[in-house]
Amino acid sequence: MRDFSNDHRWLSINTATVRRQRGEPWPLPQILDACAARGIRAVAPWRDQVAAAGLAATARQLRALDLELSGYCRGGMFTYADATARQALRDDNRRALDEACTLGAPCLVLVVGGLPRGLAGHPAHKDIAAARAQVTEGVAWLLDEARTRRMPLAIEPLHPMYAADRACINTLAQALDLCDALDPAAGGALGVAVDLYHVWWDPLLAAMIERAGRARLLAFHVCDWLLPTRDLLEDRGMMGDGIIDIRAVRALVEAQGYAGCSEVEIFSALDWWRRDGGEVLDTCIERHRRCV
Amino acid sequence: MRDFSNDHRWLSINTATVRRQRGEPWPLPQILDACAARGIRAVAPWRDQVAAAGLAATARQLRALDLELSGYCRGGMFTYADATARQALRDDNRRALDEACTLGAPCLVLVVGGLPRGLAGHPAHKDIAAARAQVTEGVAWLLDEARTRRMPLAIEPLHPMYAADRACINTLAQALDLCDALDPAAGGALGVAVDLYHVWWDPLLAAMIERAGRARLLAFHVCDWLLPTRDLLEDRGMMGDGIIDIRAVRALVEAQGYAGCSEVEIFSALDWWRRDGGEVLDTCIERHRRCV
Repeated sequence: MRDFSNDHRWLSINTATVRRQRGEPWPLPQILDACAARGIRAVAPWRDQVAAAGLAATARQLRALDLELSGYCRGGMFTYADATARQALRDDNRRALDEACTLGAPCLVLVVGGLPRGLAGHPAHKDIAAARAQVTEGVAWLLDEARTRRMPLAIEPLHPMYAADRACINTLAQALDLCDALDPAAGGALGVAVDLYHVWWDPLLAAMIERAGRARLLAFHVCDWLLPTRDLLEDRGMMGDGIIDIRAVRALVEAQGYAGCSEVEIFSALDWWRRDGGEVLDTCIERHRRCV
Repeated sequence: MRDFSNDHRWLSINTATVRRQRGEPWPLPQILDACAARGIRAVAPWRDQVAAAGLAATARQLRALDLELSGYCRGGMFTYADATARQALRDDNRRALDEACTLGAPCLVLVVGGLPRGLAGHPAHKDIAAARAQVTEGVAWLLDEARTRRMPLAIEPLHPMYAADRACINTLAQALDLCDALDPAAGGALGVAVDLYHVWWDPLLAAMIERAGRARLLAFHVCDWLLPTRDLLEDRGMMGDGIIDIRAVRALVEAQGYAGCSEVEIFSALDWWRRDGGEVLDTCIERHRRCV
């Protein structure tokens, strides 16, 4: 297992972690500069942040700063209530793929969508099995597009508390079943993003990491689960502040040959988004060395 | 599948649903009277409510009102940080069993506990596998005590968002594995409580209900999952107000021969606990007919 205690070569910052600090959006160009100034070598930007900064300009800045990507956030949202929505999501996913290619991402991360939105944003129905069938259809379609561009897709199972509104793929077993069905050769085109926040509780976690193996392990995201958790979406913890045995899971992932980044992704309206962005990045570095 | 649209013979009220109304505890004797006055035939009381009303008095009142129990809440909390805590939880579970017998409960519902509490209420460690091993040990021990008293135990898998602090049994598959390990004969001594709030998202839900079969299906709890959910613990929805396809799951359970109650258990500090208790009960009856 790699020793992270003395350097942060394998730390990546998911840029949502410092998306808005003290009420103000922190623009992506400044985030990238602040990362590079601290010797952080990798990031995972979000599409809206890239759009605000400009795709070509972001690609240039990444090259100039010698910053790698650990992933691109995000494609997916494959569930739909009508043909218009289906066409729109396909167009949007094609654009996400193209952006990932322009930025040199190692993979496009997929958050697959929950129950489809109907009128006024309400779920169009309650049939989660039907939503899951649309996800299978959507990933199958996108995989063809992705293969053409040689862009790997990383399905991210989301915590079951997001099953209705964000992603109806909720366990690694489910994600790997989908991978095996659509990409039986496991040649690297389709895999999973293991985000500890979503999967730490899973009694099958160790078994599913082993099942995934090197070929399917495309990304590894870290943060922590706080007690108490005060908000379902925006109360993630900094590594070390919660109850996830982060290092134990990293050991499992590395035992399969995973040698990539630990990507810090923290949504924290109640704490870290209220602080200075530089302080957050410094804390990520320190905790990555001590707790990841 | 039974038709509930014209009567509520198979409605049970978990008394936490009306535990405190408009800031004041609603005493159990009044809850029981209010249920009986509405033709509700079953309840599932909590231990603290029974303790406040008196065990013998509660048993007498239940008989006088001809109210059945659909379960008794609750035993469990099997994880411990030291020998003192272990002894205390065993003593407490013995008392819970005895109370369940006195009240004539069909089963004692088990919420198994999360990471053990250490100093100042903080988790004593982050090893959820160790916590799960203590749960196995605890259920095995309690099962012997329960067999002596002929009191069935119903393991309730809790939603993964409670894995750290309330229950580290988080899926029906996990609960059924435990049942099969400790009670391979499936003679009725050990089973599961299927609470829709906790399991609705599970991609294996239908398969696990079938696997459970009649012998393991000891209780069926209903409420709804709200969008958005504003609190992890106390923002459960009234049936029909959320996204769970309740009737579809009841069909699965009844297809296995389950013919017991649908027990309404709603923790709702943000809505239903703020209303008059009678209004809540009336709504439970109406929604049970229309949505369950």
